[in-house]
Amino acid sequence: MITAAELRDRLAALEPIGLGADGTTRLAWTPELAAAEAWFADQARAAGRRVERDPAGSLWAVPDADGPWWATGSHVDSVRAGGRFDGPLGVAAGFAVAERLPGVAVLAFADEEGARFNTPTFGSRALTGRLDLADVLARRDDDGTVLADAMRGAGVDPDALGDAPSWLPRLRGFVELHIDQTRDLERLDAPAGAVRGLASRLRLALTFSGRADHAGTTRRDERRDALAAAARLIVAADDLAGDDRDVLVTATRLLVEPNAFTTVPSSVRAWIDARTPDPARLEAWRDTLAVRAAGLAATTGVEIGFVVASHSPGVTFDADVRAAMSDLPELVCFAGHDAGVLATRIPAGMVFVRNPTGVSHAPEEEVDMEDAAVAANALLATLERLA
Amino acid sequence: MITAAELRDRLAALEPIGLGADGTTRLAWTPELAAAEAWFADQARAAGRRVERDPAGSLWAVPDADGPWWATGSHVDSVRAGGRFDGPLGVAAGFAVAERLPGVAVLAFADEEGARFNTPTFGSRALTGRLDLADVLARRDDDGTVLADAMRGAGVDPDALGDAPSWLPRLRGFVELHIDQTRDLERLDAPAGAVRGLASRLRLALTFSGRADHAGTTRRDERRDALAAAARLIVAADDLAGDDRDVLVTATRLLVEPNAFTTVPSSVRAWIDARTPDPARLEAWRDTLAVRAAGLAATTGVEIGFVVASHSPGVTFDADVRAAMSDLPELVCFAGHDAGVLATRIPAGMVFVRNPTGVSHAPEEEVDMEDAAVAANALLATLERLA
Repeated sequence: MITAAELRDRLAALEPIGLGADGTTRLAWTPELAAAEAWFADQARAAGRRVERDPAGSLWAVPDADGPWWATGSHVDSVRAGGRFDGPLGVAAGFAVAERLPGVAVLAFADEEGARFNTPTFGSRALTGRLDLADVLARRDDDGTVLADAMRGAGVDPDALGDAPSWLPRLRGFVELHIDQTRDLERLDAPAGAVRGLASRLRLALTFSGRADHAGTTRRDERRDALAAAARLIVAADDLAGDDRDVLVTATRLLVEPNAFTTVPSSVRAWIDARTPDPARLEAWRDTLAVRAAGLAATTGVEIGFVVASHSPGVTFDADVRAAMSDLPELVCFAGHDAGVLATRIPAGMVFVRNPTGVSHAPEEEVDMEDAAVAANALLATLERLA
Repeated sequence: MITAAELRDRLAALEPIGLGADGTTRLAWTPELAAAEAWFADQARAAGRRVERDPAGSLWAVPDADGPWWATGSHVDSVRAGGRFDGPLGVAAGFAVAERLPGVAVLAFADEEGARFNTPTFGSRALTGRLDLADVLARRDDDGTVLADAMRGAGVDPDALGDAPSWLPRLRGFVELHIDQTRDLERLDAPAGAVRGLASRLRLALTFSGRADHAGTTRRDERRDALAAAARLIVAADDLAGDDRDVLVTATRLLVEPNAFTTVPSSVRAWIDARTPDPARLEAWRDTLAVRAAGLAATTGVEIGFVVASHSPGVTFDADVRAAMSDLPELVCFAGHDAGVLATRIPAGMVFVRNPTGVSHAPEEEVDMEDAAVAANALLATLERLA
């Protein structure tokens, strides 16, 4: 039996890494991430696993016996000012399982959150050959650092990134444990659940190009106010989602230039995240919003760039994996996960742990470790059945 | 006769200071500003004036004869990525006038734009005793630097700021030359104009406090999305201004936290600038928007802080000063200016120079120097009549 105390002990050395007053921040290719990877290596050593790093920088704790292996794990990176469990709980539970199942590997995927370079599920997309290499390697973070240079600085050769798919045949399948990021399990009064599949998701990258003018003197009919246009499109995106609680639309990120007290904003970059279980509903939302954007550009004189930065049609997890966890209640997941990326190529599935508040990506993220132990034992039982 | 060539020559040594690819940036209490002040000292020396610095850091180029003097001038600081003429043109024209009128002083007011600490017309408000000393000295710029420390670093003692009003009796009156920041003079087909008064203005500082959640998983009815609320209030502020081209409402500046791709924004700070000639109209707009903000807070669960960060009821310039420039067409100004602050205490007025595009606070700001010379000669004639 995996206990709450064991999981708590495993996480204790990881938790201080990247922890500040505003939460946990462990971005890809940073010293904080390297420290978290050292924790991973310690866990692997204790579980009798050899640590290898794949060409995408993901860490593999593998058995001595040759693969392909069933694997579990998650990630150790975080968003900015995030919580303690999103990612690490799945890795800690993975090592608890690995100590009890000699043939199982434990993975920590590189840059799952994508918070630094807008490259979510970087490691699993590299592994499945779904990464546009030239595009991602050239991306810059807010400080202007290029992703390829950040990788190199972390000791991973960006020129070899294209070799990552050669590692995929080493896996028979992948089952990930993760905290629920909704109150769905709380509503079901269940400590753990099995994920049926992932919702359809897209991320829009919008640019609004107007003109800087004196805010106090330029008449309304002579302005091209980028922020006024952006605010109207954000409201339209929200209104188009309607009252359906399974359609989630969020303007997550906004950058204004020159962002000065007395200047009409000349340019805005905005990102909108949208998710719903039905892919057709999501595409209809996107197409209607694009029409609204074109209309707004015509009436405001602000040029609007409307780009789908990422799009996942959603996925249903492998039937055999789901059958192996049929004693758990099933739910649909709205977030992206490495297991969802892998599911397009190999058998995969996910076990969720109850989240009493539904809060995640924030320091208030909480899990009852007794629930985590229930889920970890379910993961152990699932991999025993599959292996 | 002051010529276009003379004004161009006077400005030549100033223009490279703070000039970058995105325009001119000379913020208060910076090395760029110190360099601009050295240019002011050179101009003063050539005009036979002695340079003194008042307790607010404003520069005074004064005649040997005792005051009180009629004065002219403007400012040499700029917004971020601003233009070349807003401020400096009035100082250069001031020295051209001073060379021809021995009894006139030339002033460069400290921190007119207030772009760094949100402290516009700092120097003239200090001089007229209209500065809340404790408040402004404690303000921080985007890097966390406190205004008092920035002042001290620029060689001005913040503890003496309260002594600035003792300098005001040295002035008989003040007439400022400035570029038009609208196309009003262009529409009148006039190279120069006289300003009747300044419009009523206010700046709102809004705070939206919600909660950070995972953007892809938190259901709509469980969110407190600070940016969604902010976008709706910005749209309401714009809609409430209606189609009246003399009501100017601008959301100029917006800061989002944590501003991450997959997190519901937890907090937004936004600033809205509003101006119109009729003070009652402006107050009605503000009161209606405050009601909307309260309603929005109730429906979204986002706490909304609604603070009037600054409010100027507007001003009508001195009748004698306006009579001395009665050969120029009159117009109303929507911007704040040091002359408007001084007008509450001493005779003051302004001469405007035509701006063909109306653009200012941006590198595209342009002036025909022949127009500037017409305005400078009008300033010269006005001060001759008054003195």
